[in-house]
Amino acid sequence: MPIYHQLTTILRQQIKDSAFAPEQPLPSEMQLAAAYDVSRVTVRRALDLLEREGWIRRKHGVGTFVAPRADEAQREESRVSGLVENLITLGLETTARLLAYEPEAPTPAAVLQALGLPADERALRIERLRFFKDKPLSVTTVWLPRSVASLTPRSVIDDRPIMRILESGGIRAQRAEQTISAILADDAAANKLNVAIGAPLLRLRRTVFDGDGRPFEHQVGLYNPDQYEYHMLLTRDNSSARPQWRHIG
Amino acid sequence: MPIYHQLTTILRQQIKDSAFAPEQPLPSEMQLAAAYDVSRVTVRRALDLLEREGWIRRKHGVGTFVAPRADEAQREESRVSGLVENLITLGLETTARLLAYEPEAPTPAAVLQALGLPADERALRIERLRFFKDKPLSVTTVWLPRSVASLTPRSVIDDRPIMRILESGGIRAQRAEQTISAILADDAAANKLNVAIGAPLLRLRRTVFDGDGRPFEHQVGLYNPDQYEYHMLLTRDNSSARPQWRHIG
Repeated sequence: MPIYHQLTTILRQQIKDSAFAPEQPLPSEMQLAAAYDVSRVTVRRALDLLEREGWIRRKHGVGTFVAPRADEAQREESRVSGLVENLITLGLETTARLLAYEPEAPTPAAVLQALGLPADERALRIERLRFFKDKPLSVTTVWLPRSVASLTPRSVIDDRPIMRILESGGIRAQRAEQTISAILADDAAANKLNVAIGAPLLRLRRTVFDGDGRPFEHQVGLYNPDQYEYHMLLTRDNSSARPQWRHIG
Repeated sequence: MPIYHQLTTILRQQIKDSAFAPEQPLPSEMQLAAAYDVSRVTVRRALDLLEREGWIRRKHGVGTFVAPRADEAQREESRVSGLVENLITLGLETTARLLAYEPEAPTPAAVLQALGLPADERALRIERLRFFKDKPLSVTTVWLPRSVASLTPRSVIDDRPIMRILESGGIRAQRAEQTISAILADDAAANKLNVAIGAPLLRLRRTVFDGDGRPFEHQVGLYNPDQYEYHMLLTRDNSSARPQWRHIG
């Protein structure tokens, strides 16, 4: 959990956001050390890393500048955006590695609550690491109650989303509730996604309901934002005196 | 940017996610120090803070446990979820403090591109800090091209979303593209949102288009995930052989 990794992540983000114009120098080592309350050694290590990655150029006696091609480097990053399960269904080529298959796993209270299960119940836990272009894209934990767990024996788990496997077994999903948040990578997530401990991750939690309004799947996905962003379309509903955004697509 | 803040954030997240059962001790100080490659002093400071916040209890000679009431403490947290502008339009009471009003601001390349403006153009930049229940909820930067900037003189800016002010001026939005990502708080964002440098933030970027498909507003919002999560509804489109999730609501 080195501090200079944190600082590198923050400065890299600022460069990507064009916070510094090409001809405008970055703050000096001394200014950065003061702003982030770290040593100049830490600042220098962060700048070293950014230079090696091609984001900045240091001109001796003049200052540090955003590399002319940083913009292009970013555009060439291959990034997935949108609802990953849809993209896979539509042909996005990803592979999934099974990390855990635990039929009667100790189930967190929040998951039991989401699935409408009693406090002492245990659910099937399926944890997978998904790769896109050979790089880890997401780590996803799917929780299934006993009522549907028999449809997903370990032997049928392949690269498909679990929902598609359940649908092959005759289950019909009707709707889902989804919540997106931001968290820091803990040691386990950092290790799986090959990011630094403390790196920012996008977290998607989703509870899926059947036609009778009963929840039958809960999943928690962690995504590396360098590889993935959640993209969506909105339409403006001007039909009332209080126009609002509606999600579509 | 103290390391123990990072570790506190990670452990607090794990407690919120029920990663530790109530009767199960947290990893020992030594185990945490090894897992996160930090000193035991750092671990102790993180645990001290979590204890003061009421998340854990340390039993001498036995170990550290999740406090029995941590779950309840979390449920009592007042958190906003959903599309903030809609919530405001529907009556959510927030206040907005104007941080910057810059009519011809140096405009990042990514913003110019989103707005379809030439490389040397300057846009109006409006930065505001929004409060919910007296706590900072989001810091939002809105970029407006000259064509609409005249509708939002500084004098008409109040607590409403900028889009509502533009609509009062006769502008009609038709659709928007929105991207959600996770970043680390830099020094400026941390200061405004009253979080630690390096804390996770949810970032929403949105470009709004008029009826002719022309972009006329771009905004970047940073949200503290302790205060805000993005909640949405999905429906399962089973009409084809390849069922997919659709956004609704």
